[in-house]
Amino acid sequence: MNPSAGALLLDLVGVFVFALAGALAAVAKRLDIVGVAFLGTVAAIGGGLLRDLLLGDVPPPALADWRYVAVSTAASVLVFFFHPQVNRLTRAVRIFDAAGLGLFAVAGTAKALEAGLGPMPSCLLGVLTGIGGGLLRDLLLGEIPLVLRTGELYAVTALAGSLVVVAADALDVYGAAAASCAIALVFLLRIIAIRRQWSAPLPRGLEDH
Amino acid sequence: MNPSAGALLLDLVGVFVFALAGALAAVAKRLDIVGVAFLGTVAAIGGGLLRDLLLGDVPPPALADWRYVAVSTAASVLVFFFHPQVNRLTRAVRIFDAAGLGLFAVAGTAKALEAGLGPMPSCLLGVLTGIGGGLLRDLLLGEIPLVLRTGELYAVTALAGSLVVVAADALDVYGAAAASCAIALVFLLRIIAIRRQWSAPLPRGLEDH
Amino acid sequence: MNPSAGALLLDLVGVFVFALAGALAAVAKRLDIVGVAFLGTVAAIGGGLLRDLLLGDVPPPALADWRYVAVSTAASVLVFFFHPQVNRLTRAVRIFDAAGLGLFAVAGTAKALEAGLGPMPSCLLGVLTGIGGGLLRDLLLGEIPLVLRTGELYAVTALAGSLVVVAADALDVYGAAAASCAIALVFLLRIIAIRRQWSAPLPRGLEDH
Repeated sequence: MNPSAGALLLDLVGVFVFALAGALAAVAKRLDIVGVAFLGTVAAIGGGLLRDLLLGDVPPPALADWRYVAVSTAASVLVFFFHPQVNRLTRAVRIFDAAGLGLFAVAGTAKALEAGLGPMPSCLLGVLTGIGGGLLRDLLLGEIPLVLRTGELYAVTALAGSLVVVAADALDVYGAAAASCAIALVFLLRIIAIRRQWSAPLPRGLEDH
Repeated sequence: MNPSAGALLLDLVGVFVFALAGALAAVAKRLDIVGVAFLGTVAAIGGGLLRDLLLGDVPPPALADWRYVAVSTAASVLVFFFHPQVNRLTRAVRIFDAAGLGLFAVAGTAKALEAGLGPMPSCLLGVLTGIGGGLLRDLLLGEIPLVLRTGELYAVTALAGSLVVVAADALDVYGAAAASCAIALVFLLRIIAIRRQWSAPLPRGLEDH
Repeated sequence: MNPSAGALLLDLVGVFVFALAGALAAVAKRLDIVGVAFLGTVAAIGGGLLRDLLLGDVPPPALADWRYVAVSTAASVLVFFFHPQVNRLTRAVRIFDAAGLGLFAVAGTAKALEAGLGPMPSCLLGVLTGIGGGLLRDLLLGEIPLVLRTGELYAVTALAGSLVVVAADALDVYGAAAASCAIALVFLLRIIAIRRQWSAPLPRGLEDH
């Protein structure tokens, strides 16, 4: 397998698990089958689409390459027909979701740096790539985005991965190894945060409401 | 009238009826006149703008050609001043809206195919073109998008039209006749769905809540 | 200071005050520090990003020039740590916000005209530049956008500024003087609207609910 095939495979795994989570949320709101497929697809590729729009990479790879929408649709239809079983897999979904978050945040930051953006905008786009699909999913379902909610430590972990990428790039050592470290960091932080119910600092005076 | 003038006219009719529906929703939320015009315009051209952004066709025709915003603004102002009468026309608006949905979904799918996208992403963009304006309208008014709500059979009918376009394109017979059939299909499905209160399949175990 | 440095400075002042307002709203919803920074930044540069996407100016200046995100992040972190003091400054924030609204609406309209759009689409993009950040902020926090709410006279004042720019452009007298007048008009209208609780015309029959 050549490196770019590996990258594509990782990307499609990320799309698959994000679509599972999106479709599960749509099923919980009782959308019909087309609604579930639409929500699952938006959740899976939405973050990357926002990044690509802002970088001017259009049509975005997630639309130009048919496999992205095929994978997200397949995952959504799977959830539609087997959602009780998928729900029972919630723990597995959360673990895959943590891996997808790391993957997308790191890939998004790297792509922004390659496009010539500075460190801070690249971190912003990295976080947006990681959390964008979830943002759009929750907006379309009429909820405050989970990824911004207190105590979830979601955007924070994405930012941690982005910072590693930016640091490695500044030191001129960014490559497959650094990317893997950054993805692993996001993954581990997120898993620990779920287990220990960690949360990021809250505004002063509002901590214990 | 040359063919492209006919296409523009159909497009503007679609913009007009979608603006009527958007402005009516804004009036119901008691927005002021600028809010009503803004919402009506977003509802009318929003779906096309999202498609054009994703295809990289910028500035989008709906902004580059002044007639789109002029028509949507005129429709919105009309609703603002005569909304009791327009409300009485609800049935007519729904019929026009069904026609607009078919028109936009078919035109959106065809444009995506022309831009070189595959069948599945083209269907996604076709559905997005058809339902995007309504999505943005409902988001801005703080509601779960009607077009994704259970039992409305809205996105489903748009998808049916997109599939006809994709099939005709695969058979190399896409043209004015196939486009008309696809639009008519969306229109009829939607009208029948409204009359008979049809709905698409729901997730298992959630059908009768 | 050369003219473009002056324009950049004004832009960054606008970004700073819009980020203050966005971060305050995020603090009120008890987001964590990354959520506050994300919301503040989206509120500050979101309107300009939407405009630049629609004009095809990508990557948008607000991402290509690191100072925008740096300023919005700094403002957000400031609010996160000192929000009781910033809240006490609400009046000052509203005054700066009125100035930012004028600045963004006028700059957005001028940029759209330069890109070759007609008067009506340029007004639409001007209003979108002015109110877009606030729209996105409120959407992400799960609220009906304040900028569209009745009695706020927010979009209306942005439109007034846009109309001055369009009129000056049509008379071929658009320049620093006309821009300043347009910004001052938005600023004054907004300040007076806040003081006197002015509101724009409401739909007939719904005025006194």
